[in-house]
Amino acid sequence: GEFATVDHHRALRQGWPEVVYGEGKSAEQCVAVAERLVERSAGFLVTRADSAVRSALVARFPSAVENAVGRTVRLGVRTNGAAATVCVVTAGTTDLPVAEECAETLLACGLRPERVTDVGVAGVHRLLARTASIRQADAVVVIAGMDGALPSVVGGLVAGPVIAVPTSVGYGAAFGGLAPLLTMLNSCAAGVVVVNIDNGFGAAMAAARMLAGRTSDAA
Amino acid sequence: GEFATVDHHRALRQGWPEVVYGEGKSAEQCVAVAERLVERSAGFLVTRADSAVRSALVARFPSAVENAVGRTVRLGVRTNGAAATVCVVTAGTTDLPVAEECAETLLACGLRPERVTDVGVAGVHRLLARTASIRQADAVVVIAGMDGALPSVVGGLVAGPVIAVPTSVGYGAAFGGLAPLLTMLNSCAAGVVVVNIDNGFGAAMAAARMLAGRTSDAA
Amino acid sequence: GEFATVDHHRALRQGWPEVVYGEGKSAEQCVAVAERLVERSAGFLVTRADSAVRSALVARFPSAVENAVGRTVRLGVRTNGAAATVCVVTAGTTDLPVAEECAETLLACGLRPERVTDVGVAGVHRLLARTASIRQADAVVVIAGMDGALPSVVGGLVAGPVIAVPTSVGYGAAFGGLAPLLTMLNSCAAGVVVVNIDNGFGAAMAAARMLAGRTSDAA
Amino acid sequence: GEFATVDHHRALRQGWPEVVYGEGKSAEQCVAVAERLVERSAGFLVTRADSAVRSALVARFPSAVENAVGRTVRLGVRTNGAAATVCVVTAGTTDLPVAEECAETLLACGLRPERVTDVGVAGVHRLLARTASIRQADAVVVIAGMDGALPSVVGGLVAGPVIAVPTSVGYGAAFGGLAPLLTMLNSCAAGVVVVNIDNGFGAAMAAARMLAGRTSDAA
Amino acid sequence: GEFATVDHHRALRQGWPEVVYGEGKSAEQCVAVAERLVERSAGFLVTRADSAVRSALVARFPSAVENAVGRTVRLGVRTNGAAATVCVVTAGTTDLPVAEECAETLLACGLRPERVTDVGVAGVHRLLARTASIRQADAVVVIAGMDGALPSVVGGLVAGPVIAVPTSVGYGAAFGGLAPLLTMLNSCAAGVVVVNIDNGFGAAMAAARMLAGRTSDAA
Amino acid sequence: GEFATVDHHRALRQGWPEVVYGEGKSAEQCVAVAERLVERSAGFLVTRADSAVRSALVARFPSAVENAVGRTVRLGVRTNGAAATVCVVTAGTTDLPVAEECAETLLACGLRPERVTDVGVAGVHRLLARTASIRQADAVVVIAGMDGALPSVVGGLVAGPVIAVPTSVGYGAAFGGLAPLLTMLNSCAAGVVVVNIDNGFGAAMAAARMLAGRTSDAA
Amino acid sequence: GEFATVDHHRALRQGWPEVVYGEGKSAEQCVAVAERLVERSAGFLVTRADSAVRSALVARFPSAVENAVGRTVRLGVRTNGAAATVCVVTAGTTDLPVAEECAETLLACGLRPERVTDVGVAGVHRLLARTASIRQADAVVVIAGMDGALPSVVGGLVAGPVIAVPTSVGYGAAFGGLAPLLTMLNSCAAGVVVVNIDNGFGAAMAAARMLAGRTSDAA
Amino acid sequence: GEFATVDHHRALRQGWPEVVYGEGKSAEQCVAVAERLVERSAGFLVTRADSAVRSALVARFPSAVENAVGRTVRLGVRTNGAAATVCVVTAGTTDLPVAEECAETLLACGLRPERVTDVGVAGVHRLLARTASIRQADAVVVIAGMDGALPSVVGGLVAGPVIAVPTSVGYGAAFGGLAPLLTMLNSCAAGVVVVNIDNGFGAAMAAARMLAGRTSDAA
Ligand SMILES: Nc1ncnc2c1ncn2[C@@H]1O[C@H](COP(=O)(O)O)[C@@H](O)[C@H]1O
Ligand SMILES: Nc1ncnc2c1ncn2[C@@H]1O[C@H](COP(=O)(O)O)[C@@H](O)[C@H]1O
Ligand SMILES: Nc1ncnc2c1ncn2[C@@H]1O[C@H](COP(=O)(O)O)[C@@H](O)[C@H]1O
Ligand SMILES: Nc1ncnc2c1ncn2[C@@H]1O[C@H](COP(=O)(O)O)[C@@H](O)[C@H]1O
Ligand SMILES: [Mg+2]
Ligand SMILES: [Mg+2]
Ligand SMILES: [Mg+2]
Ligand SMILES: [Mg+2]
Ligand SMILES: [Mg+2]
Ligand SMILES: [Mg+2]
Ligand SMILES: [Mg+2]
Ligand SMILES: [Mg+2]
Repeated sequence: GEFATVDHHRALRQGWPEVVYGEGKSAEQCVAVAERLVERSAGFLVTRADSAVRSALVARFPSAVENAVGRTVRLGVRTNGAAATVCVVTAGTTDLPVAEECAETLLACGLRPERVTDVGVAGVHRLLARTASIRQADAVVVIAGMDGALPSVVGGLVAGPVIAVPTSVGYGAAFGGLAPLLTMLNSCAAGVVVVNIDNGFGAAMAAARMLAGRTSDAA
Repeated sequence: GEFATVDHHRALRQGWPEVVYGEGKSAEQCVAVAERLVERSAGFLVTRADSAVRSALVARFPSAVENAVGRTVRLGVRTNGAAATVCVVTAGTTDLPVAEECAETLLACGLRPERVTDVGVAGVHRLLARTASIRQADAVVVIAGMDGALPSVVGGLVAGPVIAVPTSVGYGAAFGGLAPLLTMLNSCAAGVVVVNIDNGFGAAMAAARMLAGRTSDAA
Repeated sequence: GEFATVDHHRALRQGWPEVVYGEGKSAEQCVAVAERLVERSAGFLVTRADSAVRSALVARFPSAVENAVGRTVRLGVRTNGAAATVCVVTAGTTDLPVAEECAETLLACGLRPERVTDVGVAGVHRLLARTASIRQADAVVVIAGMDGALPSVVGGLVAGPVIAVPTSVGYGAAFGGLAPLLTMLNSCAAGVVVVNIDNGFGAAMAAARMLAGRTSDAA
Repeated sequence: GEFATVDHHRALRQGWPEVVYGEGKSAEQCVAVAERLVERSAGFLVTRADSAVRSALVARFPSAVENAVGRTVRLGVRTNGAAATVCVVTAGTTDLPVAEECAETLLACGLRPERVTDVGVAGVHRLLARTASIRQADAVVVIAGMDGALPSVVGGLVAGPVIAVPTSVGYGAAFGGLAPLLTMLNSCAAGVVVVNIDNGFGAAMAAARMLAGRTSDAA
Repeated sequence: GEFATVDHHRALRQGWPEVVYGEGKSAEQCVAVAERLVERSAGFLVTRADSAVRSALVARFPSAVENAVGRTVRLGVRTNGAAATVCVVTAGTTDLPVAEECAETLLACGLRPERVTDVGVAGVHRLLARTASIRQADAVVVIAGMDGALPSVVGGLVAGPVIAVPTSVGYGAAFGGLAPLLTMLNSCAAGVVVVNIDNGFGAAMAAARMLAGRTSDAA
Repeated sequence: GEFATVDHHRALRQGWPEVVYGEGKSAEQCVAVAERLVERSAGFLVTRADSAVRSALVARFPSAVENAVGRTVRLGVRTNGAAATVCVVTAGTTDLPVAEECAETLLACGLRPERVTDVGVAGVHRLLARTASIRQADAVVVIAGMDGALPSVVGGLVAGPVIAVPTSVGYGAAFGGLAPLLTMLNSCAAGVVVVNIDNGFGAAMAAARMLAGRTSDAA
Repeated sequence: GEFATVDHHRALRQGWPEVVYGEGKSAEQCVAVAERLVERSAGFLVTRADSAVRSALVARFPSAVENAVGRTVRLGVRTNGAAATVCVVTAGTTDLPVAEECAETLLACGLRPERVTDVGVAGVHRLLARTASIRQADAVVVIAGMDGALPSVVGGLVAGPVIAVPTSVGYGAAFGGLAPLLTMLNSCAAGVVVVNIDNGFGAAMAAARMLAGRTSDAA
Repeated sequence: GEFATVDHHRALRQGWPEVVYGEGKSAEQCVAVAERLVERSAGFLVTRADSAVRSALVARFPSAVENAVGRTVRLGVRTNGAAATVCVVTAGTTDLPVAEECAETLLACGLRPERVTDVGVAGVHRLLARTASIRQADAVVVIAGMDGALPSVVGGLVAGPVIAVPTSVGYGAAFGGLAPLLTMLNSCAAGVVVVNIDNGFGAAMAAARMLAGRTSDAA
């Protein structure tokens, strides 16, 4: 238990739980950190968890929820009707893992994710058909790889916060997500904000910062 | 008056005014656009306005406010006590033009800017001395060039929204703002969001999206 | 007259005139090349011509047409009703110089340009309102800087050829046009093709290759 | 069947079939999507299909055609004599996978591919010997890695459309296809257009946009 | 034994041992080089040693010390109380391998490493709590990935030498350590120096250059 | 006097004066800051001062020393015989401005600069002829543009600290100093450390950190 | 036998054999190409041959020479005393594979390689000790990774041709060979020329171009 | 006369004169260096000399030759019939300044330049028409910007040395010469070597290294 200085203080200071970044951690390490977190709080979230890590966590905490697409394991946070909603919009089917990581983190923060999937701008009628439900959300996370054009269109359709997440989907001149990252940073829709490539977790945390005080009682 | 399709519809749809991007526009063009905007709304904001553009606008609209550091001219929006506040934090004195562009845009959106200046992380006690007032704001914009480290520290100190703006201040390996841009995208403080290099305008618009409904009556 | 090997053979081989690239050439050099071209053909086009070059050319060839926005001078090609049309779509007003260079080159090739201006995707209704007229064109050139998202939306709306031109408009992470260039190369609309940053000339020549045999008799 | 919103509308709007991008999809997912597509149209094309995906598709649709080099499976589209031809020119033998993906997509669009292989510019007589047949095509796709010089030479030899495809062939300063991509974007042959690195599919779709209405009756 | 020209002369000239870079060397090669080094000096250090190399070295030299996290094997250097101390500070738990490589190299140079772990700037109170002990060291090595912000804060807290090491920890816009590298090169704390990404070895050698003459007698 | 929060606390904490970065500051601003600094300490240093700034400072502080090559003005710090020496080695004559900025900063810190000029590695005998005097210094700053190879050779010749400074000298693939920066970060001489491109100031401050306690009494 | 258009014509035109690039080719393909080449010439060279390819070639052509370090198989070319010599200098032991590929290609061209190994500039006396023998060669190939500084020093020591080869050896800011590539392109030694990263083959062919007519009779 | 350590030793060691790099040097400095060089040798060459520098040199040395296009001044070296010839091939007229710098440096080295101008690959017949004369040269320098394709074609036509020089001609994705630089480093013509962007001087020096001993008696 000596390899990490868990920042419990932060939870108090900022009102959300420490989320464990599973990349490069063994199943044993992840279980150990999760145990320490459970001692002090209602639950935990582990992201970037490979299948071995996920299995070990679910074996140890049977009531934990595994999300294989999003590569996460989450324990003990649910949202009731009072929670604010965050619309998670994706351009293509290959963006789903990032969307699921985002949705799980939203749930861990007591927010309610609502998914709108596969509405990339090359068929803009698909997006327009969903405009009303996107507008109803308290914040919108827009996830896209390749050209990363979707947040610019969504940013023009809604007045509320739009958080853009570039993904590493694509090949060649996508350069591992650099292309959509630059697109989003240069969005012609004013006030669109950006997080790191593939960072569904960060987009959800940004929404939590914006909607603090409007999370579910169960959180 | 034929060289631009002003998006009046957007103002209705999204609740904020069209802001004119003055870069590369002549004084005549800027005045012409401003006149069209004034016909339909209470005011306007012109950004990236060089001194010739600023003089022409102030000559034509004597009640407009010129901000020489921020390179803006703004007409007719004031905030009363009811407006939400946005703390605009800068790392160094050379970041001030971006901060002023941001503050003017906040005012144009009916929000109240509060400045905390020159509190870069190399003297972290300067920042810590201001923590309480930063925490009181409804959102925080953090502006920094060179290492761009300030948003990571601020992000750990406050629970609300943190919008990071990299600046092109610096030389050599700052690469025109690329260095702080990458720093901010990789912030170890969860949920920090990023806008384009030197984009004080965009940061303010992002805050406006987050704080919609909490703007001043005078807006 | 010895500083250039004019490729007259190409005109015969490929059916279009040698176009003079004015960048870095003196007014005298441009006039000299234009004179040689006029000896053998109906006219000429000089691009990237600064105002000194343009004045010298118009003084020497009074019937030549100067386009100050597009920075071109063109002599002697007109299109009649039989010519194919190419729709030149721009995202913002700052893209106009590239659009005008493109339009002039289309005219020089005996094609008919049709302009659709300032329909960037942040207000997608502006674009949708013009869909019918864009679809009627024989080819579409789409010009955009910053996020470069417009060709992806247009590519989904029309079935014909879409030629995307990134522009160096913007700042910061636009990186002189790199951002929209990458966006366009990764367009999620299948079959969109791309030319160099700010290369309105190249986009028009590409259209000329596609529409060879459908140019005006007057060409 | 809930993981993708297939854009059937697009097929109607644009006159070509939805092509499935097989990368990152399981054999089961590819078969499922293919079945849905077959319900509504004459056939399908799956690209970037690894051997497991290809086997599953051929097992399920025995009349489908597998192209192991191009990593595609295609069902039910043939070209008759009336179709336009597209010449697919490659610089080296290692460019063949991209050429085959392109040829299969052309066939799926009802166009007739004609291959000219291994005619890189370091032995320019090989290319010159094939000039006549290249000129006869309605459009030319030129595929090259490393220096990416071939499209510039071909662009000077033919008057019709030239679509350049950089490939990720090579090592070191080829930087995964960046080198030929930049070469092609800067082609000194006017009007050459470019698609993404390794994007044989996109080049074929671009040709289909240009030659719409000249496809085979059987398409 | 002919594949390397070991620079024994350097040891004499510069007062520290040749360190073997294990990357790409077989277990046999590493053992052979180590044997040659032992013939002439008190010990050796092998870095970037995979587990096969480490096992072979420990089998051949039973008194050698294996560091599995740091991927090193070291023989025969210990520090006594007289040695100068170097504080090795890390931002996150994933930076530990670089910290351990650094600590082992310090030991090999007769210096005393002191570890301060997991004190990243997003929870700056963790760092401030350790300021006194960091200030007592003769030099400080600061290791951080992602935003790389830690050296800027440490550089403002201590007056002595600060050597910054960016790590390849992180994803997306971390670009394999480029992000923290640029951060550190642009540190707003004056006089912070930087070594290559993941180069814990180099940071220790830099400290050894600075503290020459203050190493342990046992070295 | 409200535009900057001078960090006087740092001088106490770290033992060296605040140095004013003149870039982008007016002559008036620089004089104002200098006056405030003089109120509390023995002197000041202004770097990146253009000739107008330098003239204004010398006019106001007649005993200040102007260095036109290094673009600095310095007041009131001299070194006596007791100070440690820092050897400032340059590869070519065009590196001199960076060397002079470095030397002035060393003087401001109470250290003694010793210059070795124009000893680039293409004529390595020039460097070898100076080895003895370079070895006598307490630290070595090595300044080079273009290939940036000099620190690798110097690093192999001396056992003490070597601080490498890349310069923006050169053209083409020097990419504004990126080439020598990468060279130095990858130096095959172990323990060479690097500062930002053209950052003579930072190199001197790094030396001051290393040699704290060995500065001149007059400092 | 239809997958490649072997450029036999080139052998006649340029006086050297077609060399087979084994990367991405199967053992069967390599053997087939080798057989075709042997039909018309005295021998062949296959580079970038993995062990399966090498085994198949040696099995089919028992007199062929395998070089496992250089990953080549060569048949039937030897150099006699009359041949010009090319000195192949390497900075470190990890550069050996590139050096061996170069040496084998030199032999295939009838030139005589002479190896000088592990003389990197961090211990410049190692290089100086070999100066005389390096100067005697008719051309020098200098191979280095990481800082890539060696060609600059060698270029200052010899008057004849110096061909620099950057290698992908190293990590972090070596960026796969980009660092030494830029170093070499900016060499302060006048007239040093550069080939692609890891391109030992190309360096040898460059030497062959320079020394044409001075190859061995046996070639 | 103290600002530069002229490397006279090199002239003796390597057999060619010190060439003065005029960039950033004043007219006075250039004249002073030239005077020192004339004291010890037959002449001098100053490159990158702006018109003020050129005028001052010609005023001081009336027999010196000014080349305004190449921006050089050269004194006292002529070639007689015995000298080897170097063919200097350019792709476009905008490459001429680099070609002239190269030609002047060749003359300074006692070699005979032969110019072939404006034979870019988009009209490959222009190049083929000159093949015979290019083949007769002892070495070929090929200068090209934009796509940089010319050296690949020339490299396939001649058996002797081919030195490629990328130029900064072009715009957009030419990225200041990066595009042709990468093209040339990846040339599919074996044994083509590359020098820095715009480095006509370096290409000539490379030729001088290759043709040492075959220079004119007058050199
Ligand atoms: N998927 C993720 N991407 C980026 N950061 C994450 C992710 N998941 C967790 N984190 C952050 O990583 C920190 C924990 O890192 P560690 O101490 O290595 O587990 C948490 O406080 C989060 O801020
Ligand atoms: N090889 C390919 N490269 C790029 N895009 C492709 C490729 N194959 C198919 N696509 C595109 O990917 C879309 C389908 O993506 P998906 O819905 O993930 O199957 C199609 O509509 C095509 O536009
Ligand atoms: N982890 C490391 N990172 C960078 N350089 C290293 C490392 N370990 C050893 N070295 C250097 O590599 C040299 C030995 O390389 P080699 O001759 O290949 O074993 C040593 O002299 C060190 O300077
Ligand atoms: N145009 C040029 N491009 C690159 N290097 C040059 C050029 N002209 C001269 N040089 C080099 O610059 C050195 C002289 O530099 P300097 O001592 O600053 O005059 C000469 O020895 C040449 O190696
Ligand atoms: Mg889809
Ligand atoms: Mg400050
Ligand atoms: Mg607009
Ligand atoms: Mg071939
Ligand atoms: Mg942690
Ligand atoms: Mg010099
Ligand atoms: Mg070695
Ligand atoms: Mg030309």
